[in-house]
Amino acid sequence: MKAKIHVTLKNGVLDPQGKAIEHALGNMGFGGVDAARQGKYIELDLQETNETAAMASVKDMCEKLIANTVIENYSIELEA
Amino acid sequence: MKAKIHVTLKNGVLDPQGKAIEHALGNMGFGGVDAARQGKYIELDLQETNETAAMASVKDMCEKLIANTVIENYSIELEA
Repeated sequence: MKAKIHVTLKNGVLDPQGKAIEHALGNMGFGGVDAARQGKYIELDLQETNETAAMASVKDMCEKLIANTVIENYSIELEA
Repeated sequence: MKAKIHVTLKNGVLDPQGKAIEHALGNMGFGGVDAARQGKYIELDLQETNETAAMASVKDMCEKLIANTVIENYSIELEA
């Protein structure tokens, strides 16, 4: 089973990487970009085959290691 | 229009961030993780409303700034 995890900064948290992309695109002549945000994308290959158990386990991994829940949100998608 | 961009390392390219996650999960007692890969996730808010034009423009941004196409793949999803 494969887990796809998106970790994004919470609203109101400063996003210097996103701002850098936004400014660089502007400087390169790409107009029409109102905002850019950068997050992380993590893929895990799991041995677990039960979806409920896999979701619980990945949620635990996110809370304890992958996301800093003070400033970041995470979302998990599972794929068989 | 919103663009969601995933940038991932090509197969065979060393992924130290992914390896670090993999090892840390193992050390923390999370078994059953065969592999971990880390990529980037970027969201852009675009003024463009035409899907074809937006896709062409975002593809150009990826080729020129957002992805290093020597070692990275990118995929683009558009959302109205």
